[in-house]
Amino acid sequence: MTESFEQMWAALAAIGKDPSSGGYHRGGWTPTERAATDWFTDQCAARGLALESDGLGNLVAWWSPSSVPAPASGTASGPAGGAGVPNVPGVVTGSHLDSVIDGGAFDGPLGVVSALAAVDRLRAEGFEPSVPIGVGAFVEEEGSRFGMPCLGSRVATGVLSAEKALALQDRAGVPLSTALSELGIDPAAVGPSPLLDRMATFVELHVEQGRALTAPVGVASSIWPHGRFRFTFSGEANHAGTTLMEDRHDPMLTYAMTALAANKQARLAGARATFGRLSVEPNGTNAVPSQVTAWLDARAASDDVLRSLLAAITRQAAERAERDRTTVDVVAESVSPVVDFQPGLRDRLVGVLEGAPVLPTGAGHDAGVLSDAGIPTAMLFVRNPTGVSHSPAEYAEQDDCLAGVDALAAVLKDLAR
Amino acid sequence: MTESFEQMWAALAAIGKDPSSGGYHRGGWTPTERAATDWFTDQCAARGLALESDGLGNLVAWWSPSSVPAPASGTASGPAGGAGVPNVPGVVTGSHLDSVIDGGAFDGPLGVVSALAAVDRLRAEGFEPSVPIGVGAFVEEEGSRFGMPCLGSRVATGVLSAEKALALQDRAGVPLSTALSELGIDPAAVGPSPLLDRMATFVELHVEQGRALTAPVGVASSIWPHGRFRFTFSGEANHAGTTLMEDRHDPMLTYAMTALAANKQARLAGARATFGRLSVEPNGTNAVPSQVTAWLDARAASDDVLRSLLAAITRQAAERAERDRTTVDVVAESVSPVVDFQPGLRDRLVGVLEGAPVLPTGAGHDAGVLSDAGIPTAMLFVRNPTGVSHSPAEYAEQDDCLAGVDALAAVLKDLAR
Repeated sequence: MTESFEQMWAALAAIGKDPSSGGYHRGGWTPTERAATDWFTDQCAARGLALESDGLGNLVAWWSPSSVPAPASGTASGPAGGAGVPNVPGVVTGSHLDSVIDGGAFDGPLGVVSALAAVDRLRAEGFEPSVPIGVGAFVEEEGSRFGMPCLGSRVATGVLSAEKALALQDRAGVPLSTALSELGIDPAAVGPSPLLDRMATFVELHVEQGRALTAPVGVASSIWPHGRFRFTFSGEANHAGTTLMEDRHDPMLTYAMTALAANKQARLAGARATFGRLSVEPNGTNAVPSQVTAWLDARAASDDVLRSLLAAITRQAAERAERDRTTVDVVAESVSPVVDFQPGLRDRLVGVLEGAPVLPTGAGHDAGVLSDAGIPTAMLFVRNPTGVSHSPAEYAEQDDCLAGVDALAAVLKDLAR
Repeated sequence: MTESFEQMWAALAAIGKDPSSGGYHRGGWTPTERAATDWFTDQCAARGLALESDGLGNLVAWWSPSSVPAPASGTASGPAGGAGVPNVPGVVTGSHLDSVIDGGAFDGPLGVVSALAAVDRLRAEGFEPSVPIGVGAFVEEEGSRFGMPCLGSRVATGVLSAEKALALQDRAGVPLSTALSELGIDPAAVGPSPLLDRMATFVELHVEQGRALTAPVGVASSIWPHGRFRFTFSGEANHAGTTLMEDRHDPMLTYAMTALAANKQARLAGARATFGRLSVEPNGTNAVPSQVTAWLDARAASDDVLRSLLAAITRQAAERAERDRTTVDVVAESVSPVVDFQPGLRDRLVGVLEGAPVLPTGAGHDAGVLSDAGIPTAMLFVRNPTGVSHSPAEYAEQDDCLAGVDALAAVLKDLAR
């Protein structure tokens, strides 16, 4: 007898929870994230699913039809392959178990627990898949430890080289290569993942993150284009007590006006713009700053809208800089174009779910990386009544979560029939 | 033959200079500040001045009239007193040798070098003082290492207890007591200073810091009241990509409007308001912040104006917080009331300097601490053509500096006649 959705949820929800904030701290390859991964491994073993891992630690646990032969000897050596791992492609569903710093319980884990519960549902119904069904978990999706979102799927697809990935450092300066070695994981095995060879289709269920979904379950149309832009506002350090207001070249003022302008322009464009990270020099109470560095996170429904949003914010920053006798320099640190999920697969899901709403998301996901890599990919969203995410207050109603399991089971049944 | 002003200036200006920025790093009891202190000790020795130090390291070097007897044996034991130290009060002039982080060459050192040059001038003229003249240097005036401005004079006057002072920590967590011990200075000797017993009058020459002085030299009327206020803006952490703009509780917006409001209100009030220090939580590019903490440095010509300036800024912050659905909390970390220098002494200096302009300053000084402690105190300012201070670009014309030496020599001659 395997654990129910509610039992799995309760067990996983206890791992890595901060008793003071109620939020989760599960950075990639940290003890709390490893505990969540161990929990997943145990759940797969309890279900007799054949678990395979790639060099980085991305996981897929397989439920293979009895008609599917085991791999020929030697074709699946090393960490991939093994007893019960199919040698034909299948349908994989899952998400991730890591969290942002002080994140919520749902972002990631909901997709993993729902995947296990959906397999249980199909087995209980006596469903016999004609292709393998895999339950997957990608590592370090949030990038909260090594600063690179979707690290696991980026390495798996090869869009991020092993060399670059292994050189990434956490906030304590520990390179990924060292973090892996300390856990007994061989860095030499990191690279494009054989798991993807067996991934004919990927479906990720995820909590919706912005109050855009009014039905219990929806289907993703796209991931909004997303840019990270570094604004450097430069002025002149000076004495806060003696420098006449009219003699200052205060970059804090230019920044402040730009932050307000970004908010206004995003509202006008129906887009998102956030200044959530700042660095001030010299950052002294009694000093007019010499420099303020601020990172803009901007997302919009299309590449064109994102471009014009950035242009409007940059123009207002430059105008204010002239008035403040400061300067502003804008550098794009990363720009990800729109991800349009495969329309045929999306429509198939909508058909199975009898007209579930279709909606875009402003958040990045492993599903987007896999879709960009050419794997037919879809996403299901579960309603978020408050729109809060990446926060201890992130929440979904249990009835909606169970509706998500129903929907995922129906989708898997259709795709693996 | 003692060194000229220009020679002393060149030698001191080389100590603790950052070759890349051109600014100075001379935190209290650091190697660069100790090197500057050693330079001062050598200059005093070359002039035959009798140097005395208190337990913390504040220094006064004495030029005693031949008529002044040496102290009775046993009355000036320990670090204070000694050969050539007078046992009657005198006129002390000087400033400090430490700097802010990446500060200018003039703030502090100009007063020390000018004091030595003024003594040389008086001696060259054959002037014979009737009371001792001392040249002084207070330690850690800027508070750049241990976070407490005027640390040396505060401990010397007793407004800061030895216990509290010794527990102060630098940014590396080193307590002052440990820093002193490591230099062979006994922390047990720290406390109210016997140097002040011999300080009948104190005159500090300082570079002006705000372009308020159009003549080469001026006389201080007062130090503006000064407050440091911590503004805590609280909202709700959320996902920067998915949270609708209208669903946010973004404290960055409330802060940004408050920073602009502070600037505007200070201009209207003829005062100063600066937000130069910020701390953002969680400070992630892809997160709407949960909290922004910002420190307001506010100064005005009177206590009343300072109060109403803070009230206006706080009101605008609260109004914006309501609109942003955030909260703002304001705590006064320190408020120093106005320092009015003794009017009789001030007028005497103006008389000696034949109508030199009288002006207030927005900056704190050891002179303010000593004045508050009841020591008759005055300040001379040397013109700052750009108004830049606490910055590598801080500057004064050499002719104005030499006019400062002339003025200081004339003042000492009058006070010690």
